[in-house]
Amino acid sequence: MIVIVKPHTQEDQIRSLAQRIEDRGLRTHIVFGDYQTIIGIIGDTRLVDEQQLSSLDIVQSVKRVSEPYKSANRKFHPDDSMIQVGSEKIGHGHFSLIAGPCSVESEDQIISVARSVKAAGATMLRGGAFKPRTSPYDFQGLKAEGIELLLEAKKETGLPIVSEIMNINHLDLFADVDVIQVGARNMQNFELLKELGRTQKPILIKRGLANTIKELLMSAEYVMSGGNENVILCERGVRTFETATRNTLDLSAVPVLHELTHLPVVIDPSHATGVARYVKPMAMAATACGADGLIIEVHNDPPHALCDGAQSLRPEQFADVAKAVYAIRAATVGLL
Amino acid sequence: MIVIVKPHTQEDQIRSLAQRIEDRGLRTHIVFGDYQTIIGIIGDTRLVDEQQLSSLDIVQSVKRVSEPYKSANRKFHPDDSMIQVGSEKIGHGHFSLIAGPCSVESEDQIISVARSVKAAGATMLRGGAFKPRTSPYDFQGLKAEGIELLLEAKKETGLPIVSEIMNINHLDLFADVDVIQVGARNMQNFELLKELGRTQKPILIKRGLANTIKELLMSAEYVMSGGNENVILCERGVRTFETATRNTLDLSAVPVLHELTHLPVVIDPSHATGVARYVKPMAMAATACGADGLIIEVHNDPPHALCDGAQSLRPEQFADVAKAVYAIRAATVGLL
Amino acid sequence: MIVIVKPHTQEDQIRSLAQRIEDRGLRTHIVFGDYQTIIGIIGDTRLVDEQQLSSLDIVQSVKRVSEPYKSANRKFHPDDSMIQVGSEKIGHGHFSLIAGPCSVESEDQIISVARSVKAAGATMLRGGAFKPRTSPYDFQGLKAEGIELLLEAKKETGLPIVSEIMNINHLDLFADVDVIQVGARNMQNFELLKELGRTQKPILIKRGLANTIKELLMSAEYVMSGGNENVILCERGVRTFETATRNTLDLSAVPVLHELTHLPVVIDPSHATGVARYVKPMAMAATACGADGLIIEVHNDPPHALCDGAQSLRPEQFADVAKAVYAIRAATVGLL
Amino acid sequence: MIVIVKPHTQEDQIRSLAQRIEDRGLRTHIVFGDYQTIIGIIGDTRLVDEQQLSSLDIVQSVKRVSEPYKSANRKFHPDDSMIQVGSEKIGHGHFSLIAGPCSVESEDQIISVARSVKAAGATMLRGGAFKPRTSPYDFQGLKAEGIELLLEAKKETGLPIVSEIMNINHLDLFADVDVIQVGARNMQNFELLKELGRTQKPILIKRGLANTIKELLMSAEYVMSGGNENVILCERGVRTFETATRNTLDLSAVPVLHELTHLPVVIDPSHATGVARYVKPMAMAATACGADGLIIEVHNDPPHALCDGAQSLRPEQFADVAKAVYAIRAATVGLL
Repeated sequence: MIVIVKPHTQEDQIRSLAQRIEDRGLRTHIVFGDYQTIIGIIGDTRLVDEQQLSSLDIVQSVKRVSEPYKSANRKFHPDDSMIQVGSEKIGHGHFSLIAGPCSVESEDQIISVARSVKAAGATMLRGGAFKPRTSPYDFQGLKAEGIELLLEAKKETGLPIVSEIMNINHLDLFADVDVIQVGARNMQNFELLKELGRTQKPILIKRGLANTIKELLMSAEYVMSGGNENVILCERGVRTFETATRNTLDLSAVPVLHELTHLPVVIDPSHATGVARYVKPMAMAATACGADGLIIEVHNDPPHALCDGAQSLRPEQFADVAKAVYAIRAATVGLL
Repeated sequence: MIVIVKPHTQEDQIRSLAQRIEDRGLRTHIVFGDYQTIIGIIGDTRLVDEQQLSSLDIVQSVKRVSEPYKSANRKFHPDDSMIQVGSEKIGHGHFSLIAGPCSVESEDQIISVARSVKAAGATMLRGGAFKPRTSPYDFQGLKAEGIELLLEAKKETGLPIVSEIMNINHLDLFADVDVIQVGARNMQNFELLKELGRTQKPILIKRGLANTIKELLMSAEYVMSGGNENVILCERGVRTFETATRNTLDLSAVPVLHELTHLPVVIDPSHATGVARYVKPMAMAATACGADGLIIEVHNDPPHALCDGAQSLRPEQFADVAKAVYAIRAATVGLL
Repeated sequence: MIVIVKPHTQEDQIRSLAQRIEDRGLRTHIVFGDYQTIIGIIGDTRLVDEQQLSSLDIVQSVKRVSEPYKSANRKFHPDDSMIQVGSEKIGHGHFSLIAGPCSVESEDQIISVARSVKAAGATMLRGGAFKPRTSPYDFQGLKAEGIELLLEAKKETGLPIVSEIMNINHLDLFADVDVIQVGARNMQNFELLKELGRTQKPILIKRGLANTIKELLMSAEYVMSGGNENVILCERGVRTFETATRNTLDLSAVPVLHELTHLPVVIDPSHATGVARYVKPMAMAATACGADGLIIEVHNDPPHALCDGAQSLRPEQFADVAKAVYAIRAATVGLL
Repeated sequence: MIVIVKPHTQEDQIRSLAQRIEDRGLRTHIVFGDYQTIIGIIGDTRLVDEQQLSSLDIVQSVKRVSEPYKSANRKFHPDDSMIQVGSEKIGHGHFSLIAGPCSVESEDQIISVARSVKAAGATMLRGGAFKPRTSPYDFQGLKAEGIELLLEAKKETGLPIVSEIMNINHLDLFADVDVIQVGARNMQNFELLKELGRTQKPILIKRGLANTIKELLMSAEYVMSGGNENVILCERGVRTFETATRNTLDLSAVPVLHELTHLPVVIDPSHATGVARYVKPMAMAATACGADGLIIEVHNDPPHALCDGAQSLRPEQFADVAKAVYAIRAATVGLL
């Protein structure tokens, strides 16, 4: 960690700050420059509060050299993590194709979708029971009943299930859910993350709309520092000025995350683009740059329904995407 | 609400969609264009799910003409709301200067700060007991004890208190807190908002880092549609590419919000800039454009503490800001 | 084009506005809503100034239904364009791999790089002679001499050359350059675009750091409306809050542009990521989602040079990228 | 300047890099850390190419401690600059209220506007002769004739004039223009900036839509390093995800720029908000935080004109804004 001292600071103030840092068990090294002086801090700087240090009167800025996350850090865990989800694996060379409807709507719907995505090559089933909606007037999900229908679909197809939690008081309802999803809006709901850190469930954390990759890793760290190392990361688009797509899919996050962490990285092209016809090319791109999995919205399309989630793919469209994705997986073996 | 139909859609498909919309109790009006056809929807479109409608095969896009929020909408509530907070008022011409430390640290600290900000003209005391920190390794607040110390400071000074909630299970602890704050990271924690909608406490909702003004209003709507109309909105900077300030303070949100809603609007120049020396000019600017209040970080500055929140103003600096702010309030009477 | 009228506007004002629009040869259709009234404008709305219309007193907002670009619009040119560049083609199924150094530095350097990228599969040579640098104190390129060295390299290898223009007065120097590049910072240098519209040279336009896809198409329209239809579009990352990569590569722009326009789309993973080791995965991803070409920085690496452009790939790294890219091209035939 | 070396780099490689830096006349200081080693560079690092240094194999990142701009830097020029514009002054306590139409349209229009804004308290007249328009089909300005009409208005009213240049070949036309404006889209048109650096005209540089404050200062540096120190900076909104205003006005840029540079800072609330009714509160806010001037769009409002620039204020609205702005100037004397 590097502390850049304001110009014209007196030497004794600098030495006094360095001493106070050393009192905390760290070592320091002062470099006196022509215009500016810096203090290098050596040791386990993870516990130093960068924001507070930078607010001291004589400090111009603080730059972190080593990362503030440890459990998620590839430096301390060089091999890819592999997360076991029921009979499926993700990470460390294992690819997972997660598919299903935005919301669980009925037993028929979820079982029909589950069967068709399984037939097309999906390895897990996603479905929302609790839905985070911008408007209080929009459909909020089937809640507990939605979870039960997902468990039915799991029994029918054998597919492990992925569903989003929005409230720590609902944790009991998720006892048989295989992967608990933390949505983008809750990525920094630290109370929820801490609670999930006390379970041993695989947790899929979606990157927030305006959160950096480093912040995503810090949210993973919240879960992992509580004792649960089964974390899967998910990029689902960030918010930019561009309006042609709902969000801007940041695919560079795949190689960046693979460098910084050992955790598996999943891409959600459905929420990232918000447009069904862009899902296929983005799913192909995500696979080509090494994503460990995809999470794609699929639903059957009941005619005459005005308010069905038709932003997603139909089963036959998903089958076409799955075929393209597996073709790219095959073609890129050994290339990355 | 306007539905823009894809080019080359057959007329019977368009009429069929219009019919389905009418079946829901709305009226429609079809405009056939040279290249494109639009369907105007007339009636209470608040209950129509824009996202789902726009995902239909024949729909190119959907544009909302009237706003999806009602309780927060100035159209249905032309006069400014005034929120009563203990003996203080905010909104409808009443200005509130909220000040206090980022975190409550000790009885001495919070009472000392409370006394000095009151003397300088503050009308409410802020202080964090539960702290949302990016890193699990950073100080997380004094929690329940922090709330108790705030209540002590309230008893000592008479200042109503403002503190942030992060977990619905903590609601009992906030029984005597005057204003419950929802932080930027929880702006779309809808479960928390719904629960707060069941209380009658004033709720101060901070705009999320990448949330639009409309989304902020929808979060207010979550609280208000539950029956609690005592909502205060707070702009505290949005995330952009600029790094000279921690966030980019969007002061235009003041006139925009005053136009769209009757709720009071508070500005937080401390979190917006992240730099103590920019707080004064931004507090002055916020006051000049008509903010209904300011929320400013102030703390006493114990020497030799490496990790004290020194990003905030010292009491004497706050007194200088308060003086400037009240001078601008006086100079702008009748100008806006 | 849809004009949304402010609530409570009197009917005669609305009819008067509609009349004035009709006076310009367009047709209108008024839809009176419960809360709001809209005017649909039918006809060639390309010539209507959206910004000015929306500033009228009685107008709340204006929404364009048809696009303001015509020459670049796929609706009026359904087939992909194919641009001929020397003996090479790009677009309409033809893929182009453009490679070369950021700056031309010497005859040895450019000829050595040209030979090695050609051997690795590149189809065009890029090289900067005029360099847009943020700082006036940074190296500004070899200028006219740089162009001459590029022409030498073209003679040696037969590769068509791509180089950036920054000043319309330099146009003569580019007489034998095969593709003239307009850099991201000049994407809305409309005077330059107009001048290039008077040539018949292929023009590669890079998307500006904060420009929408629609604005990129409008810049293409500047060139095309001048009579030069040989335009190639290039996505090279947009500016966001994320700092792990220099910019955020918006790969969704590939399917979006392929839908909106017939022009070829090239991706620049070097400038997008700013990090050599992320170029390969992003080049693979771009290829997988259907980009018509890639433009990649490659240079030889003279030891002991402090200030050589080492952000780019070495020739042997580029060969590895080229191999992966062609493997993905082969694997995705018929999939998109 | 600080070079952060990649972990596990061998000591001799680090010492060799330090030696090469020292060979360029700089001094270095190596700090060996537990995980990482840093090299501090001491001396005039302005000439070191940060980007190129950071691309070396053994370098993880480079952090600049001192700023890369010198002429614009307040460190080397502690007093505010005052720019003389005809008989007017701006900066160093002098405030300038610049007003006028987006485009010059006719002699009547510009003279009428000039007279009314002068009467209301404006100190300079703005007017566009060459207009940068996103669409080639929109009105591009009266060009040379527009400049002549501005000069007429100057003769009539005595107001110095401000107008935008888009092409270096037009420089002769601007011989009698008092302030040459560089628009946001040309902020990094370095060829234009260099040419303007060879004149002695006051140059008003508008911040680009996605340009950092530091980049704005580097563009000023382009002009100043050419010998022209008469630079005025202008903030006019940056591009964000928010759509309630055309851009997001970054008022924090005022105190930030006042800290970093001695150059005057002007705010353009018209382009920043894009909405006439938000201009007044934002003009007031800009004045309250210490802006050295404002540039505001004003035009007379010829009835029956569909395509007149009505996004701007009417003369009587401008008079109201001017009154409020001068009231805030008066109230804040000595406060900032």
